[in-house]
Amino acid sequence: MKELTVVKIGGNIVDKEDALDIFLKDFNKMKGPKILIHGGGVLASEISKKLGIVPNMINGRRVTDHETLKIVSMVYAGWINKSIVAGLQKIGCNAIGLSGADGDSVPATKRAPEPIDFGYVGDVNPANINSSFLESILARGICPVFCAITHDRNGSLLNTNADTMASSVAIAMSRDYNVKLIYCFEKDGVLFNQEDPESIVPLITRSNYEKLKEEGVVSGGMIPKLDNAFQAIESGVSEVTIKHARNLGNGKGTIIR
Amino acid sequence: MKELTVVKIGGNIVDKEDALDIFLKDFNKMKGPKILIHGGGVLASEISKKLGIVPNMINGRRVTDHETLKIVSMVYAGWINKSIVAGLQKIGCNAIGLSGADGDSVPATKRAPEPIDFGYVGDVNPANINSSFLESILARGICPVFCAITHDRNGSLLNTNADTMASSVAIAMSRDYNVKLIYCFEKDGVLFNQEDPESIVPLITRSNYEKLKEEGVVSGGMIPKLDNAFQAIESGVSEVTIKHARNLGNGKGTIIR
Repeated sequence: MKELTVVKIGGNIVDKEDALDIFLKDFNKMKGPKILIHGGGVLASEISKKLGIVPNMINGRRVTDHETLKIVSMVYAGWINKSIVAGLQKIGCNAIGLSGADGDSVPATKRAPEPIDFGYVGDVNPANINSSFLESILARGICPVFCAITHDRNGSLLNTNADTMASSVAIAMSRDYNVKLIYCFEKDGVLFNQEDPESIVPLITRSNYEKLKEEGVVSGGMIPKLDNAFQAIESGVSEVTIKHARNLGNGKGTIIR
Repeated sequence: MKELTVVKIGGNIVDKEDALDIFLKDFNKMKGPKILIHGGGVLASEISKKLGIVPNMINGRRVTDHETLKIVSMVYAGWINKSIVAGLQKIGCNAIGLSGADGDSVPATKRAPEPIDFGYVGDVNPANINSSFLESILARGICPVFCAITHDRNGSLLNTNADTMASSVAIAMSRDYNVKLIYCFEKDGVLFNQEDPESIVPLITRSNYEKLKEEGVVSGGMIPKLDNAFQAIESGVSEVTIKHARNLGNGKGTIIR
Protein backbone atom coordinates (compact mmCIF):
# COMPACT_ATOMS: atom_id res chain seq x y z
CA MET A 1 0.00 0.00 0.00
CA LYS A 2 1.19 3.53 -0.76
CA GLU A 3 2.43 5.64 2.15
CA LEU A 4 0.93 9.03 3.04
CA THR A 5 1.72 11.42 5.89
CA VAL A 6 -0.87 13.90 7.13
CA VAL A 7 0.59 16.67 9.30
CA LYS A 8 -1.40 19.16 11.36
CA ILE A 9 0.13 22.39 12.67
CA GLY A 10 -1.54 24.74 15.10
CA GLY A 11 -1.94 28.50 15.19
CA ASN A 12 1.02 28.92 17.55
CA ILE A 13 3.41 27.93 14.72
CA VAL A 14 1.73 29.72 11.82
CA ASP A 15 1.87 32.99 13.76
CA LYS A 16 5.67 32.86 14.17
CA GLU A 17 7.51 33.48 10.92
CA ASP A 18 10.84 31.96 11.99
CA ALA A 19 9.30 28.85 13.55
CA LEU A 20 7.10 28.41 10.48
CA ASP A 21 10.10 28.65 8.12
CA ILE A 22 11.95 25.91 10.04
CA PHE A 23 8.83 23.78 10.17
CA LEU A 24 8.21 24.11 6.41
CA LYS A 25 11.82 23.08 5.68
CA ASP A 26 11.43 19.97 7.86
CA PHE A 27 8.06 19.25 6.25
CA ASN A 28 9.58 19.57 2.77
CA LYS A 29 12.31 17.06 3.70
CA MET A 30 9.74 14.40 4.59
CA LYS A 31 9.73 11.72 1.90
CA GLY A 32 6.66 10.57 0.02
CA PRO A 33 3.24 12.10 -0.55
CA LYS A 34 1.96 14.34 2.24
CA ILE A 35 -0.88 16.63 3.20
CA LEU A 36 -0.60 19.63 5.54
CA ILE A 37 -3.51 20.92 7.62
CA HIS A 38 -3.15 24.17 9.55
CA GLY A 39 -5.01 26.08 12.22
CA GLY A 40 -4.69 29.80 12.83
CA GLY A 41 -6.75 30.87 15.82
CA VAL A 42 -4.50 33.54 17.28
CA LEU A 43 -4.35 35.77 14.20
CA ALA A 44 -8.11 35.40 13.69
CA SER A 45 -8.76 36.62 17.23
CA GLU A 46 -6.40 39.57 16.74
CA ILE A 47 -8.06 40.69 13.48
CA SER A 48 -11.45 40.08 15.04
CA LYS A 49 -10.65 42.38 17.97
CA LYS A 50 -9.26 45.06 15.64
CA LEU A 51 -12.54 44.95 13.70
CA GLY A 52 -14.45 45.38 16.95
CA ILE A 53 -15.80 41.84 17.18
CA VAL A 54 -15.14 40.21 20.54
CA PRO A 55 -14.21 36.53 20.05
CA ASN A 56 -16.79 34.32 21.75
CA MET A 57 -15.35 30.98 22.88
CA ILE A 58 -17.37 28.21 24.59
CA ASN A 59 -15.39 25.22 25.88
CA GLY A 60 -12.40 26.39 23.84
CA ARG A 61 -14.42 26.38 20.60
CA ARG A 62 -15.10 29.55 18.64
CA VAL A 63 -18.73 30.62 18.21
CA THR A 64 -18.92 31.62 14.56
CA ASP A 65 -21.51 34.21 13.60
CA HIS A 66 -21.58 35.54 10.02
CA GLU A 67 -19.00 38.29 10.64
CA THR A 68 -16.72 35.83 12.42
CA LEU A 69 -17.09 33.37 9.54
CA LYS A 70 -15.91 36.14 7.22
CA ILE A 71 -12.89 36.80 9.45
CA VAL A 72 -11.83 33.16 9.88
CA SER A 73 -12.27 32.57 6.13
CA MET A 74 -10.12 35.61 5.41
CA VAL A 75 -7.41 34.70 7.90
CA TYR A 76 -7.31 30.89 7.48
CA ALA A 77 -8.09 30.48 3.77
CA GLY A 78 -6.54 33.80 2.73
CA TRP A 79 -3.42 35.05 4.46
CA ILE A 80 -2.25 31.97 6.39
CA ASN A 81 -3.04 29.37 3.74
CA LYS A 82 -1.50 31.32 0.86
CA SER A 83 1.55 32.38 2.92
CA ILE A 84 2.25 28.73 3.71
CA VAL A 85 1.83 27.77 0.05
CA ALA A 86 4.17 30.58 -1.07
CA GLY A 87 6.66 29.51 1.63
CA LEU A 88 6.59 25.90 0.38
CA GLN A 89 6.94 26.98 -3.28
CA LYS A 90 10.05 28.97 -2.27
CA ILE A 91 11.81 25.83 -1.04
CA GLY A 92 10.77 23.69 -4.00
CA CYS A 93 7.68 22.00 -2.59
CA ASN A 94 4.86 22.36 -5.10
CA ALA A 95 1.82 22.95 -2.91
CA ILE A 96 -1.82 23.85 -3.42
CA GLY A 97 -3.90 25.65 -0.80
CA LEU A 98 -7.38 24.28 -0.28
CA SER A 99 -10.50 24.83 1.74
CA GLY A 100 -13.06 22.05 1.92
CA ALA A 101 -15.14 23.90 -0.69
CA ASP A 102 -12.38 23.60 -3.30
CA GLY A 103 -13.04 20.64 -5.54
CA ASP A 104 -15.80 19.78 -3.03
CA SER A 105 -12.91 18.11 -1.22
CA VAL A 106 -14.27 18.29 2.34
CA PRO A 107 -18.03 18.84 2.61
CA ALA A 108 -19.38 19.26 6.13
CA THR A 109 -22.66 19.45 8.05
CA LYS A 110 -23.59 22.57 10.00
CA ARG A 111 -23.69 21.61 13.64
CA ALA A 112 -27.16 21.48 15.23
CA PRO A 113 -27.89 24.59 17.36
CA GLU A 114 -28.68 22.40 20.41
CA PRO A 115 -27.33 22.20 23.12
CA ILE A 116 -25.00 25.08 22.12
CA ASP A 117 -25.42 27.17 18.96
CA PHE A 118 -21.89 27.48 17.61
CA GLY A 119 -23.16 29.22 14.45
CA TYR A 120 -21.36 28.51 11.16
CA VAL A 121 -19.45 25.52 12.46
CA GLY A 122 -19.16 22.36 10.39
CA ASP A 123 -18.60 18.73 11.32
CA VAL A 124 -16.93 16.43 8.84
CA ASN A 125 -17.85 12.85 8.04
CA PRO A 126 -14.70 11.17 6.63
CA ALA A 127 -16.93 9.04 4.34
CA ASN A 128 -17.92 12.22 2.44
CA ILE A 129 -14.37 13.45 1.78
CA ASN A 130 -13.45 13.49 -1.91
CA SER A 131 -10.35 11.33 -1.62
CA SER A 132 -10.09 10.70 -5.38
CA PHE A 133 -9.69 14.45 -5.93
CA LEU A 134 -6.90 14.56 -3.34
CA GLU A 135 -5.28 11.49 -4.90
CA SER A 136 -5.27 13.20 -8.31
CA ILE A 137 -3.38 16.14 -6.77
CA LEU A 138 -0.90 13.87 -4.95
CA ALA A 139 -0.39 11.90 -8.18
CA ARG A 140 0.90 15.10 -9.82
CA GLY A 141 3.47 15.45 -7.01
CA ILE A 142 1.57 18.38 -5.50
CA CYS A 143 1.09 18.74 -1.74
CA PRO A 144 -2.42 19.77 -0.59
CA VAL A 145 -2.38 22.39 2.19
CA PHE A 146 -5.72 22.61 3.97
CA CYS A 147 -7.12 25.34 6.15
CA ALA A 148 -9.96 24.23 8.41
CA ILE A 149 -12.73 25.91 6.43
CA THR A 150 -15.31 23.60 4.87
CA HIS A 151 -18.67 24.11 3.13
CA ASP A 152 -22.22 22.77 3.46
CA ARG A 153 -22.80 22.18 -0.30
CA ASN A 154 -25.57 24.76 0.03
CA GLY A 155 -23.48 27.88 -0.52
CA SER A 156 -22.19 28.45 2.99
CA LEU A 157 -18.66 28.16 4.27
CA LEU A 158 -18.25 26.54 7.70
CA ASN A 159 -15.60 26.91 10.37
CA THR A 160 -14.20 23.52 11.32
CA ASN A 161 -11.92 22.29 14.08
CA ALA A 162 -8.48 21.79 12.54
CA ASP A 163 -7.68 18.70 14.67
CA THR A 164 -10.82 16.85 13.54
CA MET A 165 -10.30 18.10 9.95
CA ALA A 166 -6.84 16.47 10.06
CA SER A 167 -8.10 13.18 11.48
CA SER A 168 -11.02 13.12 9.02
CA VAL A 169 -8.72 13.64 6.03
CA ALA A 170 -6.34 10.98 7.40
CA ILE A 171 -9.21 8.50 7.86
CA ALA A 172 -10.60 9.17 4.38
CA MET A 173 -7.20 8.70 2.74
CA SER A 174 -6.57 5.45 4.67
CA ARG A 175 -8.91 3.69 2.20
CA ASP A 176 -6.07 3.83 -0.36
CA TYR A 177 -2.95 4.71 1.61
CA ASN A 178 -1.08 3.56 4.67
CA VAL A 179 -1.57 6.83 6.56
CA LYS A 180 0.50 8.28 9.37
CA LEU A 181 -1.02 11.30 11.11
CA ILE A 182 1.21 13.77 12.98
CA TYR A 183 -0.18 16.45 15.30
CA CYS A 184 2.33 19.24 15.92
CA PHE A 185 1.60 21.39 18.94
CA GLU A 186 3.39 23.50 21.55
CA LYS A 187 4.70 20.62 23.70
CA ASP A 188 7.09 17.77 23.00
CA GLY A 189 4.32 15.19 23.39
CA VAL A 190 2.31 13.78 26.26
CA LEU A 191 4.51 14.36 29.32
CA PHE A 192 4.74 12.26 32.49
CA ASN A 193 5.78 15.46 34.27
CA GLN A 194 4.46 18.77 32.87
CA GLU A 195 7.57 20.56 34.22
CA ASP A 196 9.99 18.26 32.39
CA PRO A 197 9.87 18.47 28.58
CA GLU A 198 12.12 15.39 28.39
CA SER A 199 9.61 13.16 30.22
CA ILE A 200 7.78 12.21 27.04
CA VAL A 201 5.38 9.24 27.13
CA PRO A 202 6.78 7.32 24.13
CA LEU A 203 3.74 5.17 23.35
CA ILE A 204 0.06 5.24 24.23
CA THR A 205 -2.21 2.34 23.38
CA ARG A 206 -5.75 1.54 24.47
CA SER A 207 -4.21 -0.65 27.20
CA ASN A 208 -2.32 2.16 29.00
CA TYR A 209 -4.60 5.10 28.02
CA GLU A 210 -7.12 4.64 30.87
CA LYS A 211 -4.31 4.30 33.42
CA LEU A 212 -2.63 7.51 32.15
CA LYS A 213 -5.95 9.33 32.51
CA GLU A 214 -6.45 8.00 36.05
CA GLU A 215 -2.92 9.10 36.99
CA GLY A 216 -3.60 12.58 35.58
CA VAL A 217 -0.77 12.31 33.00
CA VAL A 218 -3.47 12.79 30.36
CA SER A 219 -5.90 15.54 31.33
CA GLY A 220 -7.65 18.69 30.12
CA GLY A 221 -7.25 19.57 26.43
CA MET A 222 -5.14 16.45 25.85
CA ILE A 223 -8.15 14.16 26.33
CA PRO A 224 -10.10 15.25 23.21
CA LYS A 225 -6.80 15.22 21.25
CA LEU A 226 -6.13 11.60 22.25
CA ASP A 227 -9.77 10.53 21.83
CA ASN A 228 -9.50 11.96 18.34
CA ALA A 229 -6.24 10.07 17.77
CA PHE A 230 -7.76 6.75 18.90
CA GLN A 231 -10.77 7.32 16.68
CA ALA A 232 -8.40 7.82 13.74
CA ILE A 233 -6.54 4.59 14.61
CA GLU A 234 -9.77 2.65 14.91
CA SER A 235 -10.93 4.03 11.56
CA GLY A 236 -7.93 2.94 9.52
CA VAL A 237 -5.04 5.31 10.25
CA SER A 238 -1.94 3.26 11.04
CA GLU A 239 -0.23 5.59 13.52
CA VAL A 240 -0.76 8.97 15.19
CA THR A 241 2.10 11.02 16.63
CA ILE A 242 1.81 14.05 18.91
CA LYS A 243 4.95 16.20 18.97
CA HIS A 244 6.40 19.68 18.96
CA ALA A 245 6.59 21.29 15.52
CA ARG A 246 10.36 21.78 15.95
CA ASN A 247 10.73 17.99 16.26
CA LEU A 248 9.05 17.13 12.95
CA GLY A 249 12.44 16.08 11.58
CA ASN A 250 13.35 13.79 14.49
CA GLY A 251 11.84 10.95 16.47
CA LYS A 252 10.79 12.90 19.59
CA GLY A 253 7.12 12.68 20.44
CA THR A 254 4.30 10.47 21.67
CA ILE A 255 3.11 7.73 19.36
CA ILE A 256 -0.48 6.51 19.58
CA ARG A 257 -1.18 3.08 18.13
CA MET B 1 -9.02 23.04 -31.08
CA LYS B 2 -10.76 22.81 -27.70
CA GLU B 3 -12.85 25.81 -26.62
CA LEU B 4 -12.22 27.68 -23.35
CA THR B 5 -13.92 30.74 -21.89
CA VAL B 6 -12.12 32.98 -19.41
CA VAL B 7 -14.44 35.34 -17.51
CA LYS B 8 -13.33 38.24 -15.32
CA ILE B 9 -15.67 39.88 -12.80
CA GLY B 10 -14.92 43.03 -10.87
CA GLY B 11 -15.30 43.99 -7.23
CA ASN B 12 -18.63 45.73 -7.90
CA ILE B 13 -20.27 42.34 -8.52
CA VAL B 14 -18.55 40.29 -5.85
CA ASP B 15 -19.65 42.80 -3.20
CA LYS B 16 -23.35 42.40 -4.03
CA GLU B 17 -24.73 39.05 -2.92
CA ASP B 18 -27.84 39.09 -5.17
CA ALA B 19 -25.98 40.23 -8.29
CA LEU B 20 -23.27 37.66 -7.61
CA ASP B 21 -25.85 34.84 -7.28
CA ILE B 22 -27.39 35.72 -10.65
CA PHE B 23 -23.96 36.02 -12.24
CA LEU B 24 -22.83 32.63 -10.91
CA LYS B 25 -25.99 30.97 -12.28
CA ASP B 26 -25.35 32.48 -15.73
CA PHE B 27 -21.69 31.48 -15.47
CA ASN B 28 -22.67 27.91 -14.56
CA LYS B 29 -24.95 27.71 -17.64
CA MET B 30 -22.08 28.52 -19.99
CA LYS B 31 -21.09 25.38 -21.89
CA GLY B 32 -17.59 23.96 -22.06
CA PRO B 33 -14.50 24.44 -19.90
CA LYS B 34 -14.18 27.83 -18.24
CA ILE B 35 -12.04 29.81 -15.82
CA LEU B 36 -13.28 32.60 -13.56
CA ILE B 37 -11.06 35.47 -12.38
CA HIS B 38 -12.36 37.91 -9.81
CA GLY B 39 -11.38 41.26 -8.34
CA GLY B 40 -12.54 42.54 -4.97
CA GLY B 41 -11.23 46.04 -4.37
CA VAL B 42 -14.19 47.57 -2.54
CA LEU B 43 -14.29 45.07 0.33
CA ALA B 44 -10.48 45.25 0.70
CA SER B 45 -10.67 49.04 1.10
CA GLU B 46 -13.48 48.71 3.65
CA ILE B 47 -11.59 46.19 5.79
CA SER B 48 -8.43 48.23 5.36
CA LYS B 49 -10.14 51.36 6.72
CA LYS B 50 -11.66 49.41 9.63
CA LEU B 51 -8.16 48.19 10.52
CA GLY B 52 -6.92 51.79 10.45
CA ILE B 53 -4.92 51.52 7.22
CA VAL B 54 -5.78 54.25 4.70
CA PRO B 55 -5.84 52.82 1.16
CA ASN B 56 -3.18 54.50 -0.95
CA MET B 57 -4.05 54.59 -4.66
CA ILE B 58 -1.82 56.03 -7.39
CA ASN B 59 -3.30 56.21 -10.92
CA GLY B 60 -6.11 53.93 -9.77
CA ARG B 61 -3.66 51.25 -8.63
CA ARG B 62 -3.34 50.18 -5.03
CA VAL B 63 0.01 50.73 -3.30
CA THR B 64 0.57 47.47 -1.42
CA ASP B 65 2.71 47.64 1.71
CA HIS B 66 3.07 44.51 3.87
CA GLU B 67 -0.06 45.17 5.95
CA THR B 68 -2.06 45.88 2.79
CA LEU B 69 -0.74 42.68 1.20
CA LYS B 70 -2.07 40.82 4.23
CA ILE B 71 -5.47 42.47 3.83
CA VAL B 72 -5.84 41.89 0.08
CA SER B 73 -4.68 38.27 0.50
CA MET B 74 -7.27 37.79 3.25
CA VAL B 75 -10.10 39.43 1.33
CA TYR B 76 -9.37 38.20 -2.22
CA ALA B 77 -7.94 34.71 -1.58
CA GLY B 78 -9.94 34.13 1.59
CA TRP B 79 -13.48 35.42 1.88
CA ILE B 80 -14.30 36.36 -1.72
CA ASN B 81 -12.59 33.44 -3.43
CA LYS B 82 -14.01 30.80 -1.10
CA SER B 83 -17.49 32.37 -1.07
CA ILE B 84 -17.57 32.21 -4.88
CA VAL B 85 -16.39 28.59 -4.83
CA ALA B 86 -19.04 27.65 -2.23
CA GLY B 87 -21.67 29.49 -4.33
CA LEU B 88 -20.66 27.56 -7.45
CA GLN B 89 -20.64 24.22 -5.58
CA LYS B 90 -24.19 24.97 -4.41
CA ILE B 91 -25.46 25.13 -8.01
CA GLY B 92 -23.57 22.05 -9.16
CA CYS B 93 -20.46 23.66 -10.63
CA ASN B 94 -17.41 21.92 -9.22
CA ALA B 95 -14.94 24.75 -8.71
CA ILE B 96 -11.52 25.19 -7.14
CA GLY B 97 -10.29 28.49 -5.76
CA LEU B 98 -6.73 29.40 -6.62
CA SER B 99 -4.15 32.09 -6.11
CA GLY B 100 -1.14 32.17 -8.40
CA ALA B 101 0.92 30.49 -5.65
CA ASP B 102 -1.27 27.38 -5.74
CA GLY B 103 0.32 24.72 -7.92
CA ASP B 104 2.75 27.52 -8.92
CA SER B 105 0.00 28.32 -11.42
CA VAL B 106 0.73 32.03 -11.91
CA PRO B 107 4.20 33.16 -10.84
CA ALA B 108 4.85 36.88 -11.10
CA THR B 109 7.67 39.41 -10.86
CA LYS B 110 7.64 42.12 -8.20
CA ARG B 111 7.35 45.44 -9.99
CA ALA B 112 10.49 47.62 -9.96
CA PRO B 113 10.24 50.46 -7.38
CA GLU B 114 10.98 53.08 -10.10
CA PRO B 115 9.29 55.36 -11.16
CA ILE B 116 6.60 54.55 -8.56
CA ASP B 117 7.07 52.06 -5.72
CA PHE B 118 3.80 50.11 -5.63
CA GLY B 119 5.17 47.72 -3.01
CA TYR B 120 4.12 44.06 -3.14
CA VAL B 121 2.66 44.27 -6.65
CA GLY B 122 3.34 41.57 -9.21
CA ASP B 123 3.38 41.59 -12.98
CA VAL B 124 2.63 38.38 -14.84
CA ASN B 125 4.36 37.06 -17.94
CA PRO B 126 1.89 34.71 -19.69
CA ALA B 127 4.83 32.53 -20.82
CA ASN B 128 5.45 31.58 -17.16
CA ILE B 129 1.88 30.50 -16.39
CA ASN B 130 1.57 26.79 -15.58
CA SER B 131 -1.04 25.99 -18.22
CA SER B 132 -0.56 22.20 -17.94
CA PHE B 133 -1.61 22.38 -14.28
CA LEU B 134 -4.74 24.32 -15.25
CA GLU B 135 -5.45 21.85 -18.06
CA SER B 136 -5.26 18.96 -15.59
CA ILE B 137 -7.93 20.66 -13.46
CA LEU B 138 -10.15 21.41 -16.46
CA ALA B 139 -9.74 17.80 -17.64
CA ARG B 140 -11.37 16.65 -14.40
CA GLY B 141 -14.36 18.89 -15.15
CA ILE B 142 -13.36 21.35 -12.42
CA CYS B 143 -13.57 25.12 -12.90
CA PRO B 144 -10.57 27.15 -11.65
CA VAL B 145 -11.58 30.35 -9.82
CA PHE B 146 -8.68 32.78 -9.51
CA CYS B 147 -8.21 35.71 -7.22
CA ALA B 148 -5.62 38.22 -8.40
CA ILE B 149 -2.96 37.23 -5.86
CA THR B 150 0.25 35.77 -7.28
CA HIS B 151 3.67 34.89 -5.83
CA ASP B 152 7.31 35.65 -6.62
CA ARG B 153 8.59 32.04 -6.18
CA ASN B 154 10.70 33.46 -3.34
CA GLY B 155 8.14 33.17 -0.56
CA SER B 156 6.22 36.39 -1.08
CA LEU B 157 2.66 36.84 -2.24
CA LEU B 158 2.04 39.69 -4.69
CA ASN B 159 -1.03 41.79 -5.41
CA THR B 160 -1.84 41.70 -9.11
CA ASN B 161 -4.23 43.63 -11.32
CA ALA B 162 -7.21 41.35 -11.98
CA ASP B 163 -7.70 42.59 -15.58
CA THR B 164 -4.14 41.75 -16.57
CA MET B 165 -4.30 38.48 -14.58
CA ALA B 166 -7.33 37.54 -16.72
CA SER B 167 -5.68 38.46 -20.01
CA SER B 168 -2.45 36.68 -19.00
CA VAL B 169 -4.30 33.46 -18.14
CA ALA B 170 -6.29 33.72 -21.39
CA ILE B 171 -3.09 34.22 -23.42
CA ALA B 172 -1.32 31.32 -21.70
CA MET B 173 -4.26 28.96 -22.30
CA SER B 174 -4.51 29.99 -25.98
CA ARG B 175 -1.51 27.73 -26.68
CA ASP B 176 -3.86 24.74 -26.37
CA TYR B 177 -7.38 26.17 -26.52
CA ASN B 178 -9.44 28.48 -28.66
CA VAL B 179 -9.92 31.09 -25.90
CA LYS B 180 -12.66 33.66 -25.54
CA LEU B 181 -12.10 36.28 -22.84
CA ILE B 182 -15.04 38.12 -21.29
CA TYR B 183 -14.62 41.19 -19.07
CA CYS B 184 -17.69 41.88 -16.96
CA PHE B 185 -17.89 45.37 -15.53
CA GLU B 186 -20.45 47.97 -14.42
CA LYS B 187 -21.50 49.14 -17.93
CA ASP B 188 -23.13 47.37 -20.85
CA GLY B 189 -20.00 47.75 -22.99
CA VAL B 190 -18.22 50.61 -24.74
CA LEU B 191 -20.96 53.21 -25.26
CA PHE B 192 -21.26 55.76 -28.09
CA ASN B 193 -23.21 57.92 -25.63
CA GLN B 194 -22.37 57.54 -21.91
CA GLU B 195 -25.93 58.58 -21.02
CA ASP B 196 -27.53 55.88 -23.16
CA PRO B 197 -26.84 52.30 -22.00
CA GLU B 198 -28.37 51.01 -25.25
CA SER B 199 -25.80 52.79 -27.44
CA ILE B 200 -23.33 49.91 -27.27
CA VAL B 201 -20.44 49.87 -29.76
CA PRO B 202 -20.91 46.30 -31.06
CA LEU B 203 -17.43 45.71 -32.47
CA ILE B 204 -14.03 47.31 -32.02
CA THR B 205 -11.10 46.34 -34.23
CA ARG B 206 -7.70 47.93 -34.69
CA SER B 207 -9.17 49.78 -37.69
CA ASN B 208 -11.85 51.71 -35.76
CA TYR B 209 -10.09 51.86 -32.33
CA GLU B 210 -8.02 54.99 -33.07
CA LYS B 211 -11.08 56.79 -34.48
CA LEU B 212 -13.14 55.91 -31.36
CA LYS B 213 -10.37 57.31 -29.18
CA GLU B 214 -10.19 60.53 -31.25
CA GLU B 215 -13.97 60.95 -30.99
CA GLY B 216 -13.78 60.48 -27.21
CA VAL B 217 -16.04 57.37 -27.27
CA VAL B 218 -13.12 55.51 -25.74
CA SER B 219 -11.48 57.51 -22.95
CA GLY B 220 -10.23 57.37 -19.36
CA GLY B 221 -10.17 53.96 -17.69
CA MET B 222 -11.51 52.31 -20.85
CA ILE B 223 -8.21 52.89 -22.69
CA PRO B 224 -6.05 50.53 -20.58
CA LYS B 225 -8.93 47.98 -20.65
CA LEU B 226 -8.99 48.02 -24.46
CA ASP B 227 -5.20 48.15 -24.80
CA ASN B 228 -5.18 45.05 -22.61
CA ALA B 229 -7.85 43.44 -24.82
CA PHE B 230 -5.91 44.12 -28.02
CA GLN B 231 -2.75 42.74 -26.45
CA ALA B 232 -4.68 39.54 -25.63
CA ILE B 233 -5.98 39.31 -29.23
CA GLU B 234 -2.49 39.85 -30.64
CA SER B 235 -1.11 37.17 -28.31
CA GLY B 236 -3.47 34.39 -29.35
CA VAL B 237 -6.87 35.00 -27.71
CA SER B 238 -9.57 34.71 -30.37
CA GLU B 239 -12.09 37.21 -29.02
CA VAL B 240 -12.52 39.62 -26.11
CA THR B 241 -15.94 40.86 -24.96
CA ILE B 242 -16.63 43.74 -22.58
CA LYS B 243 -20.09 43.60 -21.03
CA HIS B 244 -22.19 44.06 -17.92
CA ALA B 245 -22.15 41.07 -15.56
CA ARG B 246 -25.97 40.81 -15.80
CA ASN B 247 -25.61 40.23 -19.56
CA LEU B 248 -23.30 37.23 -19.30
CA GLY B 249 -26.13 35.00 -20.51
CA ASN B 250 -27.03 37.12 -23.56
CA GLY B 251 -25.30 38.74 -26.55
CA LYS B 252 -25.18 42.33 -25.26
CA GLY B 253 -21.71 43.83 -25.11
CA THR B 254 -18.76 45.12 -27.08
CA ILE B 255 -16.68 42.57 -28.94
CA ILE B 256 -13.00 43.26 -29.60
CA ARG B 257 -11.40 41.29 -32.41
